[in-house]
Amino acid sequence: MNLAIPKILKLEDLSLIEQLTAKINNKTKPLGSLGQLESLAVKIGNILGTTTPRLTQPQLVVYAADHGIVKQGVSAFPSDVTWQMVQNFLADGAAVSVLARQHDVSLTVVDCGVKHVFEAHPRLIVKKLGDGTADSSSAVAMSAEVCQQALQNGVEIVRALPGNVLILGEMGIGNTSAASLLFSKLSGLDIEQCTGAGTGLDSEAVIHKTKVLRQALEFHHTVPVDKPLEVLAAMGGFEIATMVGSLLEAAASRRVILVDGFIVSAAILVASRIDSAVLDYCVFAHRSGERGHTILLEHLKGVPLLDLGLRLGEGSGAMIAWPLLQSACVILNEMASFEAAGVSRQSVS
Amino acid sequence: MNLAIPKILKLEDLSLIEQLTAKINNKTKPLGSLGQLESLAVKIGNILGTTTPRLTQPQLVVYAADHGIVKQGVSAFPSDVTWQMVQNFLADGAAVSVLARQHDVSLTVVDCGVKHVFEAHPRLIVKKLGDGTADSSSAVAMSAEVCQQALQNGVEIVRALPGNVLILGEMGIGNTSAASLLFSKLSGLDIEQCTGAGTGLDSEAVIHKTKVLRQALEFHHTVPVDKPLEVLAAMGGFEIATMVGSLLEAAASRRVILVDGFIVSAAILVASRIDSAVLDYCVFAHRSGERGHTILLEHLKGVPLLDLGLRLGEGSGAMIAWPLLQSACVILNEMASFEAAGVSRQSVS
Repeated sequence: MNLAIPKILKLEDLSLIEQLTAKINNKTKPLGSLGQLESLAVKIGNILGTTTPRLTQPQLVVYAADHGIVKQGVSAFPSDVTWQMVQNFLADGAAVSVLARQHDVSLTVVDCGVKHVFEAHPRLIVKKLGDGTADSSSAVAMSAEVCQQALQNGVEIVRALPGNVLILGEMGIGNTSAASLLFSKLSGLDIEQCTGAGTGLDSEAVIHKTKVLRQALEFHHTVPVDKPLEVLAAMGGFEIATMVGSLLEAAASRRVILVDGFIVSAAILVASRIDSAVLDYCVFAHRSGERGHTILLEHLKGVPLLDLGLRLGEGSGAMIAWPLLQSACVILNEMASFEAAGVSRQSVS
Repeated sequence: MNLAIPKILKLEDLSLIEQLTAKINNKTKPLGSLGQLESLAVKIGNILGTTTPRLTQPQLVVYAADHGIVKQGVSAFPSDVTWQMVQNFLADGAAVSVLARQHDVSLTVVDCGVKHVFEAHPRLIVKKLGDGTADSSSAVAMSAEVCQQALQNGVEIVRALPGNVLILGEMGIGNTSAASLLFSKLSGLDIEQCTGAGTGLDSEAVIHKTKVLRQALEFHHTVPVDKPLEVLAAMGGFEIATMVGSLLEAAASRRVILVDGFIVSAAILVASRIDSAVLDYCVFAHRSGERGHTILLEHLKGVPLLDLGLRLGEGSGAMIAWPLLQSACVILNEMASFEAAGVSRQSVS
C-alpha cells in the first residue's frame, strides 16, 4: 500500500493578510485593542481564503485507541477506561460530550484500535487497527503497513466530514506516553522534559514512567529522526497515527484545525515533519497542564488561546476555546467601521 | 440624601463548597483535570447557593460618562468618542454589541453623564449626573451628593434587571485616568505603576498622563484613604460611581458578577473598600493589556480566566469569557459520575 500524502497549500498570500489586517484596523476600537483575537481573526480569514470568513458545521472528532506500553505501569488508570470512556462519549456523559452539546458541535468517535468490541452507534466510526498497539518499550508499536493504513483512515474520515472546521480530541489510556516518546524523538529533547503526570501520576510514578520511556527510546534508537512515519510506527499510537492522516487532509482541504492539548499537539508535530505547511492551518486552543506541553507549543510556534490548567484531553480544551473562534469571525464580519458608525479617530498618539 | 448600602452576605458556607467539590471530583475525569474551570464551577455554585447552578438571563450593562480631566490631554481619543460609541453600541456596531449578540446576552447602556443628549432608545437608560465630571486634576470630580446619587442609581439599575448574572462594561474617554487615580490612592502604589496607555498613547504621552495624574493625587492628598466614597467623589467618574452602586446591589441580590478589565476592576476595588464581601461574587474575565491591571488583579486576589492582551473595555473581555461560565455549569450539571457511567477509577497513583 502506498499512501498519497494530501497536498497542502502553503499560505503565503500576503495581500490577503494585509486586507484582513486593514479591515480589522478600521473597526471602531483602538488599534490592536482586541489583542490575540485580532491575530486569530486574521489567521481564520487567511485559512479560509476570505476577508469574510464563516465557520461552518464544526466537527469534533475523538480518536480512541489502546496502548501496549500501559502494561509497564505508565498510567494512573487501567486500559479498560479507554472503552468505558468511549461509551461515555456516546452516551453524552463525558466532559467533551457536554461541552460539544453546549456549543451545538457535532461529535464523532473513531475506534482506531480500542481493546473492546462496541455495539454499532450512529456517532461511532470503526477503523480498528488492532486491540491496542504493541508495547513500544520492547517492540514497534505498529508495523509500517498498519501505520500507512492509519494515515489513510485519517484522510478518509475527514473527507467524509462536512464543514470547514476540524476539532480534534483523543482518548487512550497510555497515550501521553506515546506523545512524550514522539516529542522527545522528533525534537531531540531529553525524555524527562517531555514527560508528565498524564491522568494523575504522583512524582514517584512519573519517575517510573520516564524510566520506561527512556528504555523505549533506547530500544528504537536506530529509527532515523528524519523519517517521521517510521518514528510514528515505532512509538506512536493508532489514534495518533489516524489523527496525523486527518490533520494532513484537513489542511489540504483548507479547514481550520483547532488543536486540543498535549496528544493532539504531538500528532501535529509528526504531521508537520511530513509537511510543515500543516501548521498554517492550526489554531492552538490551550496550554495544557501536562508537563511538556509548554515546550511542545514553543517548538510548534503555537500561541495558545487559553491557559486554564486543563489536562483532560478528549478535545475538552478545544471545545472550551471554540466560541473564541466564533468571536473572532463576528468581530471581523459584524463590527462597524469608523466611517459607517461616524466615530472620530485617534487624535493624540 | 442618605444611601442605604445594600447588605451583602459573606459566603462562608464551607459545607456547600465541600459538596460542590465532591460533585466535581466524582465526574468521569481525572481529579482536577479541568483546572480553573473546576474552581469556577465551585465559585458559581457557591454564589448561587446550589450544587446545580443555572445562569439565567445574563445582563450586560455598559456604563458611559465623560471626564473633565480629558482637557489635560490624557487620552488618545477626543471626548466626542464617548457619545459616538454609545450610539454605536445602540446601533449594534461596537465590539461588545456583536459579542453580546453572538451569545444572546441582553445589552443595556446607561448614560451616567455623557456630554450629549441622546434620543430615546429602548436599550438606553438615562441616569445623567452632569455633562462629564469636573477636571479632577484641579477640582473634585463630583460632589459628595452627586456621588451618593450615582451609587443610588447603580443600585436601582440592578434592582430592575432580571436574571442572576451581571456583566459590566464601560465607555468613557478619560476613564483609565480616573481608574488609575482610584487604584493609586486606595492601594498606596505609585501612580506610575497604575498608569498605562489607555486607548493607545505612545510612551511620551503616557509620561504626560502620569504627570497630570500625579498632580491630581497631590491636589486631593488630604482625602482620607479609608473613606472610599470621598476618594470616589474626588477622583472617580460618573460611570465608575454608578457601577459601584450596581456592584454592591448585584452582590446583595446574590448574582454572579462578571468583571471586565481595568476600569471595572477599579470600581470593584472601590466597592470592596465599602464592603469586602462583594469580592465573593466576582468572576474576573481577563487580564487586560492595560498596564496596571495585573497588579490591580493581584490586589483584588482575582485570578482571570483569559489573558489575550485585550484592552478595549466596553465589557468586551467579559463577553468573550462568558461562555466559559456556561461551560463550568454544564460540567457541574450534565457530566456523568463514575458510577453512572460505569467507568473505573484511578488504579495507580
